[in-house]
Amino acid sequence: MRTIDRTHDAAATSWLGSANAPGTDFPVQNLPFAVFRRAGSRETPRGGVAIGNEVLDLAALSGTQCLDGLALQAAQSCAAPVLNDFFALGPVAWRTLRGALFDLLHKGTAATTPSHVEAVRGCLVPQPDVEYVLPVRIGDYTDFYTSIHHARTISRLLDPKGEVPRNFQWVPTAYHGRVSSIGIAGQQFRRPHGQALRDGSSTPEYGPSRRLDYELELGIYVGAGNALGERIALSRAEDHVFGISLLNDWSARDIQAWEMAPLGPFHAKNFATTVSPWIVTMDALAPYRKPWTRPAADPQPLPYLESESHRAGGAIDIRLEVSIETHRMREARLPPEPMSRTSFRHHYWSVAQMVTHHAAGGCNLQAGDLLGSGTISGPEPAEAGALMELALSGKKPVQLSNGERRSFLEDGDAIIFQGWCEREGFSRIGFGFNHGLVLPALSQSEE
Amino acid sequence: MRTIDRTHDAAATSWLGSANAPGTDFPVQNLPFAVFRRAGSRETPRGGVAIGNEVLDLAALSGTQCLDGLALQAAQSCAAPVLNDFFALGPVAWRTLRGALFDLLHKGTAATTPSHVEAVRGCLVPQPDVEYVLPVRIGDYTDFYTSIHHARTISRLLDPKGEVPRNFQWVPTAYHGRVSSIGIAGQQFRRPHGQALRDGSSTPEYGPSRRLDYELELGIYVGAGNALGERIALSRAEDHVFGISLLNDWSARDIQAWEMAPLGPFHAKNFATTVSPWIVTMDALAPYRKPWTRPAADPQPLPYLESESHRAGGAIDIRLEVSIETHRMREARLPPEPMSRTSFRHHYWSVAQMVTHHAAGGCNLQAGDLLGSGTISGPEPAEAGALMELALSGKKPVQLSNGERRSFLEDGDAIIFQGWCEREGFSRIGFGFNHGLVLPALSQSEE
Repeated sequence: MRTIDRTHDAAATSWLGSANAPGTDFPVQNLPFAVFRRAGSRETPRGGVAIGNEVLDLAALSGTQCLDGLALQAAQSCAAPVLNDFFALGPVAWRTLRGALFDLLHKGTAATTPSHVEAVRGCLVPQPDVEYVLPVRIGDYTDFYTSIHHARTISRLLDPKGEVPRNFQWVPTAYHGRVSSIGIAGQQFRRPHGQALRDGSSTPEYGPSRRLDYELELGIYVGAGNALGERIALSRAEDHVFGISLLNDWSARDIQAWEMAPLGPFHAKNFATTVSPWIVTMDALAPYRKPWTRPAADPQPLPYLESESHRAGGAIDIRLEVSIETHRMREARLPPEPMSRTSFRHHYWSVAQMVTHHAAGGCNLQAGDLLGSGTISGPEPAEAGALMELALSGKKPVQLSNGERRSFLEDGDAIIFQGWCEREGFSRIGFGFNHGLVLPALSQSEE
Repeated sequence: MRTIDRTHDAAATSWLGSANAPGTDFPVQNLPFAVFRRAGSRETPRGGVAIGNEVLDLAALSGTQCLDGLALQAAQSCAAPVLNDFFALGPVAWRTLRGALFDLLHKGTAATTPSHVEAVRGCLVPQPDVEYVLPVRIGDYTDFYTSIHHARTISRLLDPKGEVPRNFQWVPTAYHGRVSSIGIAGQQFRRPHGQALRDGSSTPEYGPSRRLDYELELGIYVGAGNALGERIALSRAEDHVFGISLLNDWSARDIQAWEMAPLGPFHAKNFATTVSPWIVTMDALAPYRKPWTRPAADPQPLPYLESESHRAGGAIDIRLEVSIETHRMREARLPPEPMSRTSFRHHYWSVAQMVTHHAAGGCNLQAGDLLGSGTISGPEPAEAGALMELALSGKKPVQLSNGERRSFLEDGDAIIFQGWCEREGFSRIGFGFNHGLVLPALSQSEE
């Protein structure tokens, strides 16, 4: 786990005013990474760091005299259109660059001479002027299923006597997901077609999904990998993690119900997955760690998934909010409406346990692999991370304040995730937004 | 489906003697593609085509005067260390290059002037002198479950009253697999660790798999992709397929049994998958097509998975053989021993149906994606494509002629797949070998 150092000092301010604005997602204590270019341009995308309302262009910065040594080498690796090489440099390089950027952006350290400030100012691009692309070439995408509150609700919705699968408390359950359909925030995707059993029918139909849903997840980026056939000890698991973004695992529940046994979801998930552009580093998250606990009545983890230091700080208090913006709300210029709030601290398995379990059979993780945390639902019904849970599979539709109701997503609905961390004595840091929009299904004539 | 043309003429011979040897996998009618370099060298890998005992180096060939037009452009795209760009050119380019290579290698066509023969000879590298690498940068790997004979046997082995899943006859079932652990023939991998429930225990243990198995599959390479949100009509599905190799989907049955419900196999599969180097093109397979049939008592496919021309020739008669070479056999210099034989013609779902179903929800396939056919088992018990089936889950171990018996794989076992096509009036063409070796599990001290 990362340590708390000068970069987390709540008293630190930046010479850039927007970084000190109350409620900003991107104070100098955050410094998340993305890949961007000027919107609508043909520029080669490159790495950038968020500060206030600006993006610090790391390709431009590595052409200045502001950095040297390992920090310069790390910034140079961010000048590429994907951050895989930067991720592969490992945690010392990540931390060194973070520290150097903090020193350059922080008001009143030795590094912030007037000429440095001028040079850094020349590398800033206003956030409203940029567009984001996927931050890495994702080699493999793995989606977990590790919130026991989500698992309990879903199991009961599928079968009134349904229980959490018996392996759930032993195995950080995961399945491999589809890489090609992962898109960056702003993704618009067609409602998928698929096979489903309609009520009362014993044979399936092929047609547009009628039970489209979102899943509130975090996207966990593997930084440095492991060799095929080797494992990753729990104590070192987070050295392999670069950082965390927001992830929407869009799901077609009717297709999923029919196809899922015995090999898991396929069409129900592989039409679209949306990630937010900004990756908040594990270093930035250091102050928001929480003890990882498990109810005493539950089976405790097998030894490879258990350690004292993990119990002390294995969880992370990442607050999350899901909002909806329907077509009618957009037309009426109403703001998106929050539907649920929760925190990642309730998760049954931690980031470190997911990483260690993933490699426990010798599977090689690689820089730029993406892990979905699994749907994040808290203990209360209002903390559910999917619409199917909030609306009890259509039995209790969600009532919106403009009079609309939702059991599942409709065409034109946008779903917006936000995430942030806050703790007494520390700054608030945020993840930005993750939004995606449902388009109507492809019609027969468009084929 | 591809048409039969001059490149399939059984009377055609090559000026290269080894291409005309009886029983060769690589006559002039085959011309499969791989990526290779001289063994032990630091050469940049590049595309090659098998002819007799040689590899025709396509990077070298594109530097000669032997090709022009689209054939030259296609050959140039094969000069790269991966064939993704070549695959993305599409079926006309593939067929044009195939035709041009046939004309150059065939004895007695206008293209085979003495100077051309001399130039082509200069581009040949003996197969024993080369090593192979993965032929493409695999974007996504999808593994199917589409042999009803395999599904029936496995269902009964797991539960005496077990039946084929009820969606099996409607859905070409598939799950996403792991890309990073896919290796080329010759792959040696450690026996994986994982969680399993041992007999009589109600809590799982973590340790080396005791039920390691192989699965006989074909590896189907996507040639040209589809855009996200679009579909692929069954009639055009094979235009998106470049060709087929052999694939071993190594499986840990004890880990699989414990982890699989509800999201499918993960650790049980993601430690290693082995593909053979040579990709036999769909063009080369044209003569070996068979009608695609389904028992009249079974549900017939939904309209998007059904057509008259598909019924006429949707199946392919690819003969397959699995052999084992144990450590003791290797020590005693005994040859590998065949354990089973079958054909892909028995498969319940076809290549075209797999491709169409994969894209039916709008999932975008990309050049270089890999599809595993699913375990290929024929109707007879001796045609089983996995050791678990052959040995009835350990109830009837396979007896080898040197006195050894196998219920599951032991350390030091090598598994070898071979594949070939033959039909009266046409040449025999082969797939070469796919072999892989089980190494002992990592010990605690090696961590």
